[in-house]
Amino acid sequence: MRHIVLAYILLLSALGSALLQAAPRNVILIIGDGFDDQHVTMGRNFLSGMSGQLGLDALPFRASVQIETVNDEGQPLYVADSANTATSLATGGMTNIGRIATDIADNDLPTIAEQAIEEGWRVGLVTTSSLTDATPASFLTHVSSRSCEGPEEVLGSTYYGIPQPACISDARENGGPGSIVEQLVNSGAHVLLGGGDKFMRQTTVDGITVSQIAVNRGFRVISRDTEFDSLMAPQRLLGTFDEETLEVQWRGTDSRVGEPAELSWLSHVSEYFGSVTEPSPMSCEPNPDYDDTPRLAAMTTVALNHLATNNEQGFFLMIESASIDKQSHKRNPCGSIGEIAQLEESLALARSFASNHPETAIIVTADHAQAAQILPEPTLYANYPIAIYSPGLTARIRTPEGGMMRINYATNNGFSEEHTGANVPLFANDVAAQWLKAFMRQRDVHDAMQRFLFQPAEQ
Amino acid sequence: MRHIVLAYILLLSALGSALLQAAPRNVILIIGDGFDDQHVTMGRNFLSGMSGQLGLDALPFRASVQIETVNDEGQPLYVADSANTATSLATGGMTNIGRIATDIADNDLPTIAEQAIEEGWRVGLVTTSSLTDATPASFLTHVSSRSCEGPEEVLGSTYYGIPQPACISDARENGGPGSIVEQLVNSGAHVLLGGGDKFMRQTTVDGITVSQIAVNRGFRVISRDTEFDSLMAPQRLLGTFDEETLEVQWRGTDSRVGEPAELSWLSHVSEYFGSVTEPSPMSCEPNPDYDDTPRLAAMTTVALNHLATNNEQGFFLMIESASIDKQSHKRNPCGSIGEIAQLEESLALARSFASNHPETAIIVTADHAQAAQILPEPTLYANYPIAIYSPGLTARIRTPEGGMMRINYATNNGFSEEHTGANVPLFANDVAAQWLKAFMRQRDVHDAMQRFLFQPAEQ
Repeated sequence: MRHIVLAYILLLSALGSALLQAAPRNVILIIGDGFDDQHVTMGRNFLSGMSGQLGLDALPFRASVQIETVNDEGQPLYVADSANTATSLATGGMTNIGRIATDIADNDLPTIAEQAIEEGWRVGLVTTSSLTDATPASFLTHVSSRSCEGPEEVLGSTYYGIPQPACISDARENGGPGSIVEQLVNSGAHVLLGGGDKFMRQTTVDGITVSQIAVNRGFRVISRDTEFDSLMAPQRLLGTFDEETLEVQWRGTDSRVGEPAELSWLSHVSEYFGSVTEPSPMSCEPNPDYDDTPRLAAMTTVALNHLATNNEQGFFLMIESASIDKQSHKRNPCGSIGEIAQLEESLALARSFASNHPETAIIVTADHAQAAQILPEPTLYANYPIAIYSPGLTARIRTPEGGMMRINYATNNGFSEEHTGANVPLFANDVAAQWLKAFMRQRDVHDAMQRFLFQPAEQ
Repeated sequence: MRHIVLAYILLLSALGSALLQAAPRNVILIIGDGFDDQHVTMGRNFLSGMSGQLGLDALPFRASVQIETVNDEGQPLYVADSANTATSLATGGMTNIGRIATDIADNDLPTIAEQAIEEGWRVGLVTTSSLTDATPASFLTHVSSRSCEGPEEVLGSTYYGIPQPACISDARENGGPGSIVEQLVNSGAHVLLGGGDKFMRQTTVDGITVSQIAVNRGFRVISRDTEFDSLMAPQRLLGTFDEETLEVQWRGTDSRVGEPAELSWLSHVSEYFGSVTEPSPMSCEPNPDYDDTPRLAAMTTVALNHLATNNEQGFFLMIESASIDKQSHKRNPCGSIGEIAQLEESLALARSFASNHPETAIIVTADHAQAAQILPEPTLYANYPIAIYSPGLTARIRTPEGGMMRINYATNNGFSEEHTGANVPLFANDVAAQWLKAFMRQRDVHDAMQRFLFQPAEQ
């Protein structure tokens, strides 16, 4: 009898181990670019109401993530960009602004996505930016500057007349691995969906386009989401649906963005004299240019299908809602909020997937903080005998619940707002939470994802 | 034998219950006024370094707290003040800006501190502001406006010439409970430590000062922290150590605060022409006016001693570092950071206390977000052929680790920066965390503290 019991226990134990080993381990990392607490709250107030909650608010775990950036001497910088922060998330290292998975001495930093591919996991990158933009690039490529997106740019480029760095030693011409887009198609990724068609069309030193290289590597290459219906999972898939960044779904009334307060003529005597006229309220409306842009959710569905079908080991999927940040640079709060809504849709799909795939870690986080701030309505100053107004640019947005949300952009007087230095939020499901702490540095998030995927026994 | 075992189990169970009932249940609620994620990160970067961690980062639980404010019609406002937010934390209700534990129809909202006193707990309020300021006031008093601090102000007052609301129906003259300071000394609180001496000296309708009323209520009344040594715990204690707000411990070099960029004469042609000179770097230095101001930590030690000595039931203690916010209004980042350091010291004392008193819930949170933002250093714009600068006021602070942290204030052009609308962080120890969720509204924090203290069996 004792032997039978023992055998039965051993049998159960073996079955248990087999079941545990059989469950694919998946990471779904959702990055809201610039999605700091001001932006999260903007999204909540507009999409769910002041007293409501977003889908991400329902995630059971929340942490703060400290952003780390260093200059070329290794000294701390207190405000990051998407290149060095995505590098920290992807590699667990620290680096300077603009660098893609390289350290300040230009050494390549191995990424979690590369390790996943090496060890048999499938990898997907889905983004509303160009696939060659800093956030996706940092997971599968290594260059000294984020500007080296295509075979042309790797040798040097300009942006509105301002020279951008080249990545001479990375160029294929010089025996390097090539530009970001070339490294992407050669990376072994399974799914790549986003913008960046213009880089796919560039010709490489081989005399063929990047797109042709991708086909040679076994990718089904598509450029319209209407082709989603014809896909056969789990084939390798590369889709670019716009020249660079995808269009965003919303805009302010008649394309209005943050505007200056208008001052009466007495303000020439003193800024406190005379009267001030605040920008009139605006609504968020559909962006007509959005048109045939695939939704982030649609790309997410396709990616999950291609990554999970006939896959016993699991996958690493990075999903980026990139234009929360890009629209904040443009002082367009409706643009940002629409992309928060897109992030929410993708999160819902991820959670639905995880409910059927138990070893799926879902992490939502931001790469860095951004400019936008929610300000009091000007009525707060009604009793003051002087003209009070924001020195920056503001947009007053009508919210669906009948409120007025005033967003301020005042980090600089130039044509693009800049990032700010606050730590960022992180939200996670229970599977991921076991590997995380309430406070982490950005590189700790990388380490946690890495342990979850590759050293689960250590938990 | 069976009966003996059963009796033994029953005995153990009874002992267990007795032990559980015997452990005093304490709440230590630490409020960093205006202590949002930008300010938390400012504090971390300066006090612990970019890659370091604050004491609060070591707390095992972190949540986001959504702030709720309504106008007099009950419609949402997206930016709060310390009165309506402290009201939410203290009462679980929502109200309008400026209201102290009253709803928008001016009904009194019962507070957790009042319930604690009624049910036999001791209550303490410790703050670096005047005890009559909005945050402490909201825990034990009820008036229609935060300006009604003393027997004089309750009938109306001015602030820099701007009329402030009266609380006519609250005045003792009209049969009301009196001003904030009068309600405080009559509240049944056990410990009250902070600023606000000028209100204690005011004469009430009874012809005696508020201070004399306090003595009549059994308070030992002190006004110098040198008297801390002569105290006999657990006597009731009321200390006011400054006329209103306590001085802060740090300031910028030579009292410098945020300053405008200086533009060359070509800027008269266009703001993008010519050159820009950023404010020169500054350091944080001791504020000479701080002098004989008691540290928040010293007040915390005294409060814990007076609340816990010979107390079998427990206490509710609110500790506020008020000038994180007040110095941000003044565009003085060193002032704010010094008060973050003070909050950290008090948190360390609270954690030490909790290590010897197991049923002590520690919650650290902010009441609302504030103006300051960490911006990139101007070198980021070095390649731009135009003058780029903040339209607001900036301070560039040397950090002890050798970095340069640039803080921007740009919510308005007036004499005081304004709050912003982001959700705020909450940090908690394990005892508190069991009652909290990763996302809460501010009133949910009240409800959790209330359940912890008064309905522990529901957990």
